Amino acid sequence: MEGVGVVKALGAEVRASDLAPGDRVVPLDPMLGTWRSLAALPAASLYRIPECLPELPAACLTINPPTALCLLERFVDLEEGSVIVQNGANSAIGKAVVEVAASRGIKTLNIVRDRPNWDDVAERLTAIGATAVIRPEEAKAAGAGWKPALGLDCVGGESATAIAKLLRPGGTMVTYGAMSLKPISISAPLLIFKDLRIRGFALSKESTPDLKAKLLDRVITLAQKGLFASSRFEEFALEDYQEALQFCERGFRDSKAILRISH
Amino acid sequence: MEGVGVVKALGAEVRASDLAPGDRVVPLDPMLGTWRSLAALPAASLYRIPECLPELPAACLTINPPTALCLLERFVDLEEGSVIVQNGANSAIGKAVVEVAASRGIKTLNIVRDRPNWDDVAERLTAIGATAVIRPEEAKAAGAGWKPALGLDCVGGESATAIAKLLRPGGTMVTYGAMSLKPISISAPLLIFKDLRIRGFALSKESTPDLKAKLLDRVITLAQKGLFASSRFEEFALEDYQEALQFCERGFRDSKAILRISH
Repeated sequence: MEGVGVVKALGAEVRASDLAPGDRVVPLDPMLGTWRSLAALPAASLYRIPECLPELPAACLTINPPTALCLLERFVDLEEGSVIVQNGANSAIGKAVVEVAASRGIKTLNIVRDRPNWDDVAERLTAIGATAVIRPEEAKAAGAGWKPALGLDCVGGESATAIAKLLRPGGTMVTYGAMSLKPISISAPLLIFKDLRIRGFALSKESTPDLKAKLLDRVITLAQKGLFASSRFEEFALEDYQEALQFCERGFRDSKAILRISH
Repeated sequence: MEGVGVVKALGAEVRASDLAPGDRVVPLDPMLGTWRSLAALPAASLYRIPECLPELPAACLTINPPTALCLLERFVDLEEGSVIVQNGANSAIGKAVVEVAASRGIKTLNIVRDRPNWDDVAERLTAIGATAVIRPEEAKAAGAGWKPALGLDCVGGESATAIAKLLRPGGTMVTYGAMSLKPISISAPLLIFKDLRIRGFALSKESTPDLKAKLLDRVITLAQKGLFASSRFEEFALEDYQEALQFCERGFRDSKAILRISH
């Protein structure tokens, strides 16, 4: 899905103004096939990344930051000073949400599960703009006065219910993941008498290459202002994919696994 | 909440064009107090019912028919030929939904729990305009080709989940009751990849007397065309309220309990 590559040579019909050998490019089409060393691809399915962006963050630009932009823009009109709440706030999307929200003056209440290095995680989220970082069991008490207009849920189950309870009347919860593998469960009185709106979002559902390119233009602009630079990376050779998978299955990971493909 | 009364006399400041002794009136303010034989009330909190409407249906006009109108108008733009699905279709609101939908050329897929007189119930729903009436266990198979844009849920639990599964992509489910006392439970993939919208509705939340009067104007117009006349009634004297409550607790009731207050 994601990945960054380098243009080796141009086909005869590619305009030199669109791409040049040496350009770093990311895929615009889903499932374009990024786990390979060489590929002949249509220029329209590639997006050129500016040289100033480092290689590893560039490899992770096409899903998480555009998702964060959509989550903050498609569902509720948020103004400066608006409040949102999210669970899984230490995920790559969660961190991108914190950064985009902070850049717009939107306050974020961030729920992060307890873990050995919880204080470090909270400190790093605060450093990139989180207004508050709390543990799930603190949500009810700590979130009481916040009245968020938007809740972002990537966990489901009890965690989604807790977010719905924190929302202000007329608030919207958007589910974009299901880390707990449990369904979203909302009591009827909560839905009815708080007039909640429950929605779902998947970037993959609606991204034409054209829409995705427009989102990436905005992601790049934000990245050049310093956003989306907080990820940590753990590199693996493609041959060591099993080791990479084991790394991904570890709980409370703080870095993204990157496969490096040599040729 | 609901009820019909007769104007006995007018206060000095009430204009004769607004109300006259003998007029049948229903309450516009919630909790106005209808379980009594006499009351002095502001004219603005009462709505005059035309003489052509029978007494008992008039006593049940202020909640169920306006709720049906709101459920069909506030959430999804339904055109002639659109499809909706609802559970609890034999409730007073469910029947009002069938009638209003039929009057607008909207198709209704109606789920009614199995019961001794299921065939009678289905026949009566069909007579007032239901496109199809099915049992809950038939929903998956019978509803497969319908792709409703709107689902109305007054049951919750598994029944709400079944309705969400029947909806077309981008469809909306509105919960306005919780007969099963179980929460609404939707899997994250359903919410995310079908882009469902889950909402709640309560008439009581938003009805100013002015809004309610406008809704009742439209209800009366429809009632004069023959809608909302299918309810059956069981009358009880107010003194026999315990008997009325027992009647209300019976499963699979087909008539509404009406308290008659003598004076």
